[in-house]
Amino acid sequence: MGKLNKLSGFPELLPSGRVIEQYILDAARQVFELHGYLSLETRAVEPIDHMQRSGEIDKEIYVLRRLHASAEEADPGLGLHFDLTVPFARYVLEHAAHLDFPLRRYQIQKVWRGERPQEGRFREFTQADIDVVGKGPLAFHHEIEMAVVMATLLASLPIPPAVIQVNNRKLAEGFYRGVGATDTQSVLRAIDKLDKIGADRVRRLLETETGLTPEAAAKCIKLASIRSLDASFVEQVRALGVTNELLDQGLSELAAVVTGANAERRGSVVADLRIARGLDYYTGTVYETQLVGFESIGSISSGGRYDNLASNDKQSYPGVGISLGVSRLVSILIGKNLVSVSRAVPSAVLVAVADEASRGASELVARQLRARGIPCEVAPSADKFGKQIQFADRRGIPYVWFPATTDPEGAAGDTVKDIRSGEQVEADVTRWQPPPDDLKPRVFSNVDTSTALRESL
Amino acid sequence: MGKLNKLSGFPELLPSGRVIEQYILDAARQVFELHGYLSLETRAVEPIDHMQRSGEIDKEIYVLRRLHASAEEADPGLGLHFDLTVPFARYVLEHAAHLDFPLRRYQIQKVWRGERPQEGRFREFTQADIDVVGKGPLAFHHEIEMAVVMATLLASLPIPPAVIQVNNRKLAEGFYRGVGATDTQSVLRAIDKLDKIGADRVRRLLETETGLTPEAAAKCIKLASIRSLDASFVEQVRALGVTNELLDQGLSELAAVVTGANAERRGSVVADLRIARGLDYYTGTVYETQLVGFESIGSISSGGRYDNLASNDKQSYPGVGISLGVSRLVSILIGKNLVSVSRAVPSAVLVAVADEASRGASELVARQLRARGIPCEVAPSADKFGKQIQFADRRGIPYVWFPATTDPEGAAGDTVKDIRSGEQVEADVTRWQPPPDDLKPRVFSNVDTSTALRESL
Repeated sequence: MGKLNKLSGFPELLPSGRVIEQYILDAARQVFELHGYLSLETRAVEPIDHMQRSGEIDKEIYVLRRLHASAEEADPGLGLHFDLTVPFARYVLEHAAHLDFPLRRYQIQKVWRGERPQEGRFREFTQADIDVVGKGPLAFHHEIEMAVVMATLLASLPIPPAVIQVNNRKLAEGFYRGVGATDTQSVLRAIDKLDKIGADRVRRLLETETGLTPEAAAKCIKLASIRSLDASFVEQVRALGVTNELLDQGLSELAAVVTGANAERRGSVVADLRIARGLDYYTGTVYETQLVGFESIGSISSGGRYDNLASNDKQSYPGVGISLGVSRLVSILIGKNLVSVSRAVPSAVLVAVADEASRGASELVARQLRARGIPCEVAPSADKFGKQIQFADRRGIPYVWFPATTDPEGAAGDTVKDIRSGEQVEADVTRWQPPPDDLKPRVFSNVDTSTALRESL
Repeated sequence: MGKLNKLSGFPELLPSGRVIEQYILDAARQVFELHGYLSLETRAVEPIDHMQRSGEIDKEIYVLRRLHASAEEADPGLGLHFDLTVPFARYVLEHAAHLDFPLRRYQIQKVWRGERPQEGRFREFTQADIDVVGKGPLAFHHEIEMAVVMATLLASLPIPPAVIQVNNRKLAEGFYRGVGATDTQSVLRAIDKLDKIGADRVRRLLETETGLTPEAAAKCIKLASIRSLDASFVEQVRALGVTNELLDQGLSELAAVVTGANAERRGSVVADLRIARGLDYYTGTVYETQLVGFESIGSISSGGRYDNLASNDKQSYPGVGISLGVSRLVSILIGKNLVSVSRAVPSAVLVAVADEASRGASELVARQLRARGIPCEVAPSADKFGKQIQFADRRGIPYVWFPATTDPEGAAGDTVKDIRSGEQVEADVTRWQPPPDDLKPRVFSNVDTSTALRESL
């Protein structure tokens, strides 16, 4: 096979890591489907010009060509998708005649970006997206729904507490206009640098580059410091004495998201007026999500409202969506040793084999267990029973089944041994059932996530 | 968004088609896990030179480069994987220290091939592979296991009967040597053309190009006509009067696969000595699978035994595997209208909304239903109830729930309406349960697959 290349940015999981990832994917699917989201997948490939038109990250696209494409052949100009939103918008336009709106869909797929790999950033990674898309209008209440569905999913996972930080484009833009800014994008760009360069330098930027008065600049910086777990941020913003119609609308929307989502999932959502990422292209609510204690790794779930997710000559399709960065989350859980798995193999039972002549009897036991939903495997060789038990032990398989003829104790019927306790009991293959906790690999948290961390808010 | 390009060879499913695909993927996962196969995924990208070394289909590779890669930047020489076997072999070598052997793994991923699209052949498609890999030795019984697991999966699907056709490299090679052939690959190549050019022209090829005697050529063609649902093919081969040690081993292995697999799944496996595809690179059993009545579309599940799936200086890893062509199967089911789905959305219930002020009450109903595992959604707008019922009807959502305050009949409590029958009954949100058949979208066969077809064997 020759030399092996580990490829930076293309992580691969060992079997136990895959159990963790699969657990998250299963939980995502379950929560999404319970909320009425249907599953879709789009092709991995999009026309490059289409992807470039829709965003500013063209540097990161991987371009495809056939290895033996002839020189005369026209380059079809295809690249791998870098997110799931652009392909979904194209899918909606292409198949609109066959879709019912508003359309709730989830999409769990890999995406690729040619950017430099670093902690939590990969060149190939899995995202789990939900979006609601309307034809013509799309009701505001779906902006609350996004936060509720994602908070429900995050609360169902064995992870540290997650907090969805919400802001609103209308609020920010209305406020900036209200203090006299004409170039609100420039204010956003400056505010986005608060974490990096600090309030003093941002203030100077706002005064020199954006041309705000010192008072206006101070208010913009003050605005970014406001956060609350309830609607009390509204009063704090009002106290800054800025009035603007768009600001009013943004305040009322953001209050509705925070109040509505926390009513369903207490403490899951915080209004955080420092959030600036995405405010340049989203048109209403924006979402970012931090894992408490692991803020430095960046947002694990982001999204927002687009008044124009997709459009053609005849119709515009507004949407709101949020995306879970599955690979990033898995890399935190594994890298920081936050979770463990009970085993990496699905088998709950290893059926022992006394000798190759009686392999058929062991296969029959396995078939009967499987018919009742119990994952199992038959020992690969008729080694001494001690070695077969070791085989199970090494894989974390909790039970070894000894068919009647192979019983080392000489008992009359089948027996099953819990190799953790050593307890061995007679068992009827048509009735025996492992405890529910042993049926499938379990994923559990290594840290107590129930208390202190959430209070750090 | 501009003009849309439908891309030939990159099929996308509508929501109802995705329900069918998801059903097959779920069934595959369930059957694989019940048999002890763990889940793995490999990165989508492999070094091109590695992929070229391992097969002959380098023409079909899609090569990647970053759109803005600078001219000085060394081309990393990466391409998209064209199957799941080559990446898995590389994975085994790379991570062998962390794996337990024999290793059973399943892998469900997309693969890409730049070949010309045609019926059942795509440029992007999904495969579901299982393999068992040993370190050093790998017992023969896993070659029976592959057929059993795949037959079990196929039997669980709402599809026409599938027959796994099995042959054996040792049998063919031993036979050809036994009739005096020295270049057995050349015999294989000729036999592989039987369907295309017919027996007479293959006979001529064997005499002129491979240099077989007329008698030997006739025997090779005779061999390819033998098939049986049991071990009776052994006698038919013996009757040709060819003796060879490797032939004996092949006969006994093939008999064991056919007998063993049909003992578990009657009629699922047939010894078919015409099967030549793969005999050049597999080293023992080979599998091909036809859907009865749809043979022209080609094999939906293929695989075989490799004595050397992967190897390095120190160690060789034999393996046996079989792959289900999920996209091909789905395209047959949809294209030939063989299955239907009860609905495309997960929601079993639409919770009606009387007016926007009482949306919270409807959300609460939905939350209580979800807590008991019932997928539901809340009506997007407080339209007239007739329109809300239409909304559910259009999506195939079978039930509409009317919270107490919104009951159009003026009854005291909540009611739920089966919109297919029109029956509306009082219901308690903490206890009401839809029939199991209504809980999730169902996939059912449009044709009676239970009888005639299987008898056509």
